[in-house]
Amino acid sequence: MKELDLINKITKIFNENNDKSIIMGPGDDCAVLDLGDKDNFYVFTVDEIVENTHFILDFLKPEEIAIKLVRMNVSDVLSMGRANPFYALVSGGIDFKKIDDKWILRFLRTLKKEFDCWGIKNIGGNLSRSSNIFFSIKLIGKVEKNYVVYRKGAKEGDFLCVYGFCGSSMAAVDIMKNKKRNGITKIEEKLVYYFTRPKLYKDFIWENCKYFSAMIDNSDGIYRSALILSKENNLKVVIDFKNMEKLVKPEVLKWCEINKKNPFDYSLFGGEDYNPIFSVSEKNLKFLNDKNIKIIGRFKRGKGVEVLNYDGKIKNFEHF
Amino acid sequence: MKELDLINKITKIFNENNDKSIIMGPGDDCAVLDLGDKDNFYVFTVDEIVENTHFILDFLKPEEIAIKLVRMNVSDVLSMGRANPFYALVSGGIDFKKIDDKWILRFLRTLKKEFDCWGIKNIGGNLSRSSNIFFSIKLIGKVEKNYVVYRKGAKEGDFLCVYGFCGSSMAAVDIMKNKKRNGITKIEEKLVYYFTRPKLYKDFIWENCKYFSAMIDNSDGIYRSALILSKENNLKVVIDFKNMEKLVKPEVLKWCEINKKNPFDYSLFGGEDYNPIFSVSEKNLKFLNDKNIKIIGRFKRGKGVEVLNYDGKIKNFEHF
Repeated sequence: MKELDLINKITKIFNENNDKSIIMGPGDDCAVLDLGDKDNFYVFTVDEIVENTHFILDFLKPEEIAIKLVRMNVSDVLSMGRANPFYALVSGGIDFKKIDDKWILRFLRTLKKEFDCWGIKNIGGNLSRSSNIFFSIKLIGKVEKNYVVYRKGAKEGDFLCVYGFCGSSMAAVDIMKNKKRNGITKIEEKLVYYFTRPKLYKDFIWENCKYFSAMIDNSDGIYRSALILSKENNLKVVIDFKNMEKLVKPEVLKWCEINKKNPFDYSLFGGEDYNPIFSVSEKNLKFLNDKNIKIIGRFKRGKGVEVLNYDGKIKNFEHF
Repeated sequence: MKELDLINKITKIFNENNDKSIIMGPGDDCAVLDLGDKDNFYVFTVDEIVENTHFILDFLKPEEIAIKLVRMNVSDVLSMGRANPFYALVSGGIDFKKIDDKWILRFLRTLKKEFDCWGIKNIGGNLSRSSNIFFSIKLIGKVEKNYVVYRKGAKEGDFLCVYGFCGSSMAAVDIMKNKKRNGITKIEEKLVYYFTRPKLYKDFIWENCKYFSAMIDNSDGIYRSALILSKENNLKVVIDFKNMEKLVKPEVLKWCEINKKNPFDYSLFGGEDYNPIFSVSEKNLKFLNDKNIKIIGRFKRGKGVEVLNYDGKIKNFEHF
């Protein structure tokens, strides 16, 4: 069973539609609950970072893992619209044969610093032993009721847009898989920097989300995100592969040139970049005046994702 | 660094005292937030079940792991007083080389059934790959403001009480470590049954918690729980080892006899039984009329835990 199929099955098992407080259950970046606040819904999300799936212990510093873990989760909250994270529960499974107290304290101090940047307060957690290390964050946040954006909401004719750049994390994963940290080039170090410190675009989202019909954060790559939006909205998403060009950072271009890779594969299929992917109607598009917005496709009647001007094989991004 | 020391360091790093909504932060069974509801606080908890730390994959069925995972978390909610769980986020790391779709669906269907028993609605989650399997639940619940009980609150002279029985889970862990499932005796099967389906005492807690000065759920064993209560309340806890006798189930007694173990070690140090441990003042003790309440010790001036009539070595319960 493919991962998306499994997730669909899970969604069916846990289909809960008899609780009026649940505004949005499983299947979006956050769950959305109405807990009685006049102006805000509460949002809830959980995300993990797992050894050998999302990181290699010898390659990344504890500080890097901590920052990435926080931003992965904050990204889910921000992708709900005018949202803010407030509280966190942190848990994890650690192996004292692999990491020591010093490592853990470095990790936690950075976690705290990064929490402070986002106004997040840790309210609890749990620590277990696990031979394969993992850390998990659960965030509790709020989103303004009038400015909430879901994965569902795109209409026929809407444009599919991306803010910022994609592909550098997939390149960083390739580097992590094949090299030691002290053997990487300056460009590669830069790509690892982008990978561990994904840029989140809160200001942009807060200012512009009123014009979005749907939004998802780019944790699984453009192609897979488009597939999710296609399913959620019961529409076909047509992407032009030529548009991938504007999504690639110069470092990714250069690295791909050196390593004889196609950089546009990296922007189409690479995940973990956490930039916003959203849909906008033709009517609303004129209100968006930011040169970092890149139109890459369009919603049409039909099903699935079509990639124009692409003759390669559709790849599934695996974190590792 | 010992686990308790590490947890103390973590608590210090994340000491958040500038948010009025946080009624109780890290360090109790649940975090407690005031989100504006007149009569209730919201409670939040997270707990994991990790392969080879909390379970052996070949030994336990997916249904057993699911039930245990839910009750571990519900226990944390109930131990806050007149509390109920409402919503859950489920996440995990799985390895398709170890478990297949069928296993996962059996696990999830049982999770759903067990959620239904407790009135819990799943609102989301996340699935990763991990070579060492783990599952995590985050629960969101409510506790009545007038009936909330913390770990802190015990006074000098209060009695330390336990409801129900302890020790069977530690015996089950011993069995899991050393035997194959199809090679265990009827008594051992019963102990595994108690281990995977810990009994939670919601009715008892709801009816009686108004008389408790402090409460903790027995996830780490009587001794370690007493140590936590001692620290939280800045008092000494004196336990009489003779009282361990009334905490042991007949099956544990019999199994220990056969295997030449001291059953009272199992009730003093064994964790994962999830029954309530609480303190009651002398004045309030007379209101408690339930033969399953067992007085095992008393809070005195001083520090640490003293075990009377015990000449063995203090053991640290490790889940595995």
